[in-house]
Amino acid sequence: MFKAKIRSEVLKEVIDVIATQVDEVKFTITTSGINAKAVDPAHVAMVDITLDKGAFEEFKAKDTEMGINIEKLREVVKLTKSGETIAMELDEDHNRLVLSLGNITRNMSLVDTAGMSDPKIPGLNLAAKVTLELDELRKGLRAAEPVADHIALIADENNFELRADGDTDFSSLTLVKDQLVELSCKEKQRSLFSLDYFLNMIKAVSSAQNITLEFGNDFPVSMDFTFADSKGKVSFLLAPRIEND
Amino acid sequence: MFKAKIRSEVLKEVIDVIATQVDEVKFTITTSGINAKAVDPAHVAMVDITLDKGAFEEFKAKDTEMGINIEKLREVVKLTKSGETIAMELDEDHNRLVLSLGNITRNMSLVDTAGMSDPKIPGLNLAAKVTLELDELRKGLRAAEPVADHIALIADENNFELRADGDTDFSSLTLVKDQLVELSCKEKQRSLFSLDYFLNMIKAVSSAQNITLEFGNDFPVSMDFTFADSKGKVSFLLAPRIEND
Amino acid sequence: MFKAKIRSEVLKEVIDVIATQVDEVKFTITTSGINAKAVDPAHVAMVDITLDKGAFEEFKAKDTEMGINIEKLREVVKLTKSGETIAMELDEDHNRLVLSLGNITRNMSLVDTAGMSDPKIPGLNLAAKVTLELDELRKGLRAAEPVADHIALIADENNFELRADGDTDFSSLTLVKDQLVELSCKEKQRSLFSLDYFLNMIKAVSSAQNITLEFGNDFPVSMDFTFADSKGKVSFLLAPRIEND
Repeated sequence: MFKAKIRSEVLKEVIDVIATQVDEVKFTITTSGINAKAVDPAHVAMVDITLDKGAFEEFKAKDTEMGINIEKLREVVKLTKSGETIAMELDEDHNRLVLSLGNITRNMSLVDTAGMSDPKIPGLNLAAKVTLELDELRKGLRAAEPVADHIALIADENNFELRADGDTDFSSLTLVKDQLVELSCKEKQRSLFSLDYFLNMIKAVSSAQNITLEFGNDFPVSMDFTFADSKGKVSFLLAPRIEND
Repeated sequence: MFKAKIRSEVLKEVIDVIATQVDEVKFTITTSGINAKAVDPAHVAMVDITLDKGAFEEFKAKDTEMGINIEKLREVVKLTKSGETIAMELDEDHNRLVLSLGNITRNMSLVDTAGMSDPKIPGLNLAAKVTLELDELRKGLRAAEPVADHIALIADENNFELRADGDTDFSSLTLVKDQLVELSCKEKQRSLFSLDYFLNMIKAVSSAQNITLEFGNDFPVSMDFTFADSKGKVSFLLAPRIEND
Repeated sequence: MFKAKIRSEVLKEVIDVIATQVDEVKFTITTSGINAKAVDPAHVAMVDITLDKGAFEEFKAKDTEMGINIEKLREVVKLTKSGETIAMELDEDHNRLVLSLGNITRNMSLVDTAGMSDPKIPGLNLAAKVTLELDELRKGLRAAEPVADHIALIADENNFELRADGDTDFSSLTLVKDQLVELSCKEKQRSLFSLDYFLNMIKAVSSAQNITLEFGNDFPVSMDFTFADSKGKVSFLLAPRIEND
């Protein structure tokens, strides 16, 4: 059983985040909220998104799951404006989700979840933790874009740097401890990532003000942020690009 | 003889409406205003548009006609802003229309109307009449778009429904009598239409708040609305799509 | 030596203007400001742009020159908003320009200027001089666009006309002396120009209110305007299109 109402802009952010990885996703529904985990086809990135029941305007559920075509759901959300409410009800007998918005009813057949994997989120112990303003990160990535197709994240006790080295040019976003919301790093850490993947994920973040990056020498980076008044929680994970000698 | 001034946004709506059907059109001009009728190349839809002389800022005319290339006229309107005035004068000696906007003069050769048909608007007796807000209709059509390539209009004594049935999904806009501006229908009526054609016509409507649909079982639908403070009147007609068994 | 700070919107206009002609340009730097001259690959048009040191927020320089890839510079400016400041410093040892904006540093390798020509701006004695509002000129060009691929500039003692003659249609912007900021022309002058080239240059003008055109019978036209509170000065030159008999 799943019956809920959600604000359009919250559902939109859920869709944007999941769409960075997959077209179809399995939502795991419990009495306390919903969760989805998804791995991109190349197995380079993954996302873990949780929405507490408090993020919904109304929420009634028993343990269940539903397979959703993300683009179909996006089409429905596009019919609404920010602030409008979308009602959802799982019709398990007919294997479909019934969406209501204003005077419109939209019946959406569910996707079979039998073939969907259950990605395991690896437990990583990452030595550098940096919280910064999303706008700064975004600017640093945009500055890197014309220069190279990969970026390095570098941290030490006092500094964080996002750096792109091209053949002739480089771009660097450098923030000292005072310019960061949080910096926790005992020894220098450095890891290289695909700029495309990084940008793709960051573009899906709309309402968060800060974002927390955790990384370590040649380890994956995790990017965590909250939305919907902290009732929604996203963790992206991106594998490192190993540097050639 | 035809000499007139018209506000840019009124002429724009005339152009948008006619462009749903044809590239070239014959305007029939009388002392009381102008009229154009046009059928789309596939003979599935037609439009009948009338602009009373009261819709013009100035209007002097004797009975005549002029053939206009709609895209050329659109280019001229694009040079103006809403609220600006365009002056038009038919130069019958040189077979051209002279348009003036601000300090710009644009001479446009007329299109030969000899080969243009005079579409006859069929007199239909349609059993269902529904007037609703244009925004509701638009939303219902947009919701239908990802689901199917045709829509059903359904009415009975108390309800109006715009419904799209796809292979697995459906979308429905359902309005009860109280949610409609007008509903007049004694027995249940249902007819199927091409969504593309329907959307194409509705996209051309810019200023109307309400629109009146008349339809009957497997009959065409007429879509009527006014613009330019009710001095302009449009009637679209769309043939039904006959359902296969 | 060259070390300066400039507002984003001023640098943007410099880039837009130069990009109408070339991808790479040589800036000549003196103690009083910077200058660039560039000819388009077809040798039909050229630009001469000067920015006084007063157009910069800060400016320190000795005579030098630097070769810049205009698109790379545009990417940097795109990272900023109007009103933000960009710091530039020439690093002659490493043959690069170091740009700083907020917390971002961007190192840009310079382009070799050895192969770049030094265009000579011809000294022309043009008989007609017309200063008009940029918006009027823009509208006249846009009106001409659907009609023909070339335009005529025509002036006499009392009138200025920008005219496009197509096979069947024509478009004309006609301004009498009172509607012009300035008109100085003793005998009738007329010259024909490529509309594409003309439009391309005018599109690069963003902040100027007025523009001065100078032309003569089958001579080039010069288009002069200022920006950055008159601390920036642009002169475009466009060769005439000789009319066939």
